[in-house]
Amino acid sequence: MEASALSRIGLAGLAVMGQNLALNVAEKGFPISVYNRTTSKVDETLDRAHREGQLPLTGHYTPRDFVLSIQRPRSVIILVKAGSPVDQTIAALSEQRVEGARHGPSLMPGGSFEAYNNIRDILQKVAAQVDDGPCVTYIGEGGSGNFVKMVHNGIEYGDMQLISEAYDVLKHVGGLSNAELAEIFDEWNKGELESFLVEITADIFKVKDEYGEGELVDKILDKTGMKGTGKWTVQQAAELSVAAPTIAASLDCRYLSGLKEEREKAAKVLKEAGLKDEVQNVGVHVDKKRLIDDVRQALYASKICSYAQGMNLLRSKSNEKGWNLNFGELARIWKGGCIIRAVFLDRIKKAYQRNPNLASLVVDPEFAREMVQRQAAWRRVVGLAISAGISTPGMCASLSYFDTYRRARLPANLVQAQRDLFGAHTYERIDRPGSFHTEWTKHARQTGAGVGAFN
Amino acid sequence: MEASALSRIGLAGLAVMGQNLALNVAEKGFPISVYNRTTSKVDETLDRAHREGQLPLTGHYTPRDFVLSIQRPRSVIILVKAGSPVDQTIAALSEQRVEGARHGPSLMPGGSFEAYNNIRDILQKVAAQVDDGPCVTYIGEGGSGNFVKMVHNGIEYGDMQLISEAYDVLKHVGGLSNAELAEIFDEWNKGELESFLVEITADIFKVKDEYGEGELVDKILDKTGMKGTGKWTVQQAAELSVAAPTIAASLDCRYLSGLKEEREKAAKVLKEAGLKDEVQNVGVHVDKKRLIDDVRQALYASKICSYAQGMNLLRSKSNEKGWNLNFGELARIWKGGCIIRAVFLDRIKKAYQRNPNLASLVVDPEFAREMVQRQAAWRRVVGLAISAGISTPGMCASLSYFDTYRRARLPANLVQAQRDLFGAHTYERIDRPGSFHTEWTKHARQTGAGVGAFN
Repeated sequence: MEASALSRIGLAGLAVMGQNLALNVAEKGFPISVYNRTTSKVDETLDRAHREGQLPLTGHYTPRDFVLSIQRPRSVIILVKAGSPVDQTIAALSEQRVEGARHGPSLMPGGSFEAYNNIRDILQKVAAQVDDGPCVTYIGEGGSGNFVKMVHNGIEYGDMQLISEAYDVLKHVGGLSNAELAEIFDEWNKGELESFLVEITADIFKVKDEYGEGELVDKILDKTGMKGTGKWTVQQAAELSVAAPTIAASLDCRYLSGLKEEREKAAKVLKEAGLKDEVQNVGVHVDKKRLIDDVRQALYASKICSYAQGMNLLRSKSNEKGWNLNFGELARIWKGGCIIRAVFLDRIKKAYQRNPNLASLVVDPEFAREMVQRQAAWRRVVGLAISAGISTPGMCASLSYFDTYRRARLPANLVQAQRDLFGAHTYERIDRPGSFHTEWTKHARQTGAGVGAFN
Repeated sequence: MEASALSRIGLAGLAVMGQNLALNVAEKGFPISVYNRTTSKVDETLDRAHREGQLPLTGHYTPRDFVLSIQRPRSVIILVKAGSPVDQTIAALSEQRVEGARHGPSLMPGGSFEAYNNIRDILQKVAAQVDDGPCVTYIGEGGSGNFVKMVHNGIEYGDMQLISEAYDVLKHVGGLSNAELAEIFDEWNKGELESFLVEITADIFKVKDEYGEGELVDKILDKTGMKGTGKWTVQQAAELSVAAPTIAASLDCRYLSGLKEEREKAAKVLKEAGLKDEVQNVGVHVDKKRLIDDVRQALYASKICSYAQGMNLLRSKSNEKGWNLNFGELARIWKGGCIIRAVFLDRIKKAYQRNPNLASLVVDPEFAREMVQRQAAWRRVVGLAISAGISTPGMCASLSYFDTYRRARLPANLVQAQRDLFGAHTYERIDRPGSFHTEWTKHARQTGAGVGAFN
């Protein structure tokens, strides 16, 4: 072991993510020790620290040396692959947040509060910085940090799906060119939709294809890969009895996108069976300007519903585990350093500050007003897409979710009657307490039938 | 132990389901031994066997006596609560299939083929009987029987949801009375929708409320219970990378129906925020007759998509486990003795007989033709519901599924470009092999930018 001052913190696991995070910490002026089982990674990191300006980073080749080089109480960030959920999250993190790790990520640390407190100053410096502070907060006990990161990814799936649907409608119903799309997304990025994903979408439409005419986006195969956190989010939603249809729709679309060959065959078979061209029943005169404005509103309203699902998923798990999550804080730390960063998150933060027990984002007075203002446009877009044969599963799921959640009375009474008829599951009444069972078939087939009930 | 001839089979576990199944077996002429840990259940069963006409059923009070009373090789049907999935299935079976157990269920036995063969004659007699034989077939090894039963229940959730949506649209857009609804469902039960669930739905609308004016269905609280198999189906679909949005939508609706108090508050808040009455933008003159016919077609087309999802879920699991499931046979044994029994299943059976490797029901030539014929009506109904603010999540999910699956080209290219931009996940091209990565932002912000790619 070198004869040097002790480090403030250690980091073990020097794959891409680990190296970048260690350099980020060192760059902020916190002496850090690093260790990796494969020693060449230690050398690589030392080399980078040297090249980037003599950062206060020391490398160690045995666990013992590593641990002894850190001041007490020792805090070590471990970035290795572990059990399945942690594994998936870390994998996602290490592959997707490369830039964030190096230049300021959104950090969602869970576990021991003492351990968090011990390195709080480091985390606050390392994290992305936004107007109201660093993008880090203590999440809660146990696996709460992982869970929050998982829901973040589920929301990210939803956002990407909704943007792709907006693109699809503008392109196939509105007939917009890539140049027009780039311009529109740039424009949208100056308003309520301002966000990293809208910004990069505008960029994507601008990139020319080096192999031929036109833009690269049109040459990309329409099969979407995935890393597992979307699936995990959907399974957890089902487990917790929380409806998350927009996130689920985005996962389903990734699955269906993978069936490229099947889809090509289906298009052929259905055409042979008489299916007309893709765009049907749509008046030839779509008002382009109005369509663009409608799609913007539909995207925004659909997004609110998707975030409402994600936040309610967090609330449900928080209640189950006693994590006492602070939803406003979660929205705040997502404002920078992560894929879903957006201006819009500040409004979610404020909604939960106004009412920490908000049942759903859509009933926050401000969001409620926005939903009402946008609903006509939203219904027009989804309706138009449906008649045109353009699938907008995410927007449809959000709209169905909204229309189900906001209805005091659903047709679930019929389902409950069916269940009572075939399985004697009993039902409740709207006008008196108790559980009731009826011999439906018998009474239906008598004239002037009464009904047997019990309390 | 009594000095009597040995029984052909034994049954342990005499809750409602066990008793009924034992009586059913005995009634078909197969001598059966029964056993239960709580001995009063044995007496109860003996008593019922006696009252129902001296059925060949012997009761036993110790496991030893019970086992010794059965002829070798001994086959014992065990109906007790076990591990979680088996438990859920058995719970569902025991609570829902009471009538079926006594008078002919659809049986989905998996496990050892030898064990199946040993009691095949009994199962074939005990099962529901339809035109093309008894509703039983050997499913496959391991847990295949349970899995098939689980998917059956998932499909059942979907059917019930779709019917409730048809009801909702007819009632709230068409303004139909319960008497008219009863008549329509009776009518539908004579055509392509002929099924147990449509039949009982007609009955439900006929039952009067004994506590007041009108029909009982209107007095039932709109909160739907559930037993766990729908949730399990949705989680398995995600696990297997299979899109099952209609089944998922039906599960979500049950979850949302449970939030009755939240929904009532949401209706109020959104009304205060300016939301107009439920039915919006719908022309006052809905053509009732045409609406009814449209809804019938929408229900049928939505149902095909839901069954396509269920069958593909079975195929995926069968491939993973090497079960070699026979999908035509599964459709056949559901034709009687279970909740989803329907004339329509015969057509599914035939589709898989024509092509056992059918990629999806919607590309079977006959179903494809039906989808094409019904799509205009289907789009009209969903579009109308959307403008009216009536949620039809199941029909929407089926239509989105259809429109996604049948499109050769989806906007997934944009999602893949986004993933490459922020996570260097690479993409494929439509016009040349290999994996590519592009520095999107750099190229987007250069004028006349080219693009870097590698193979």
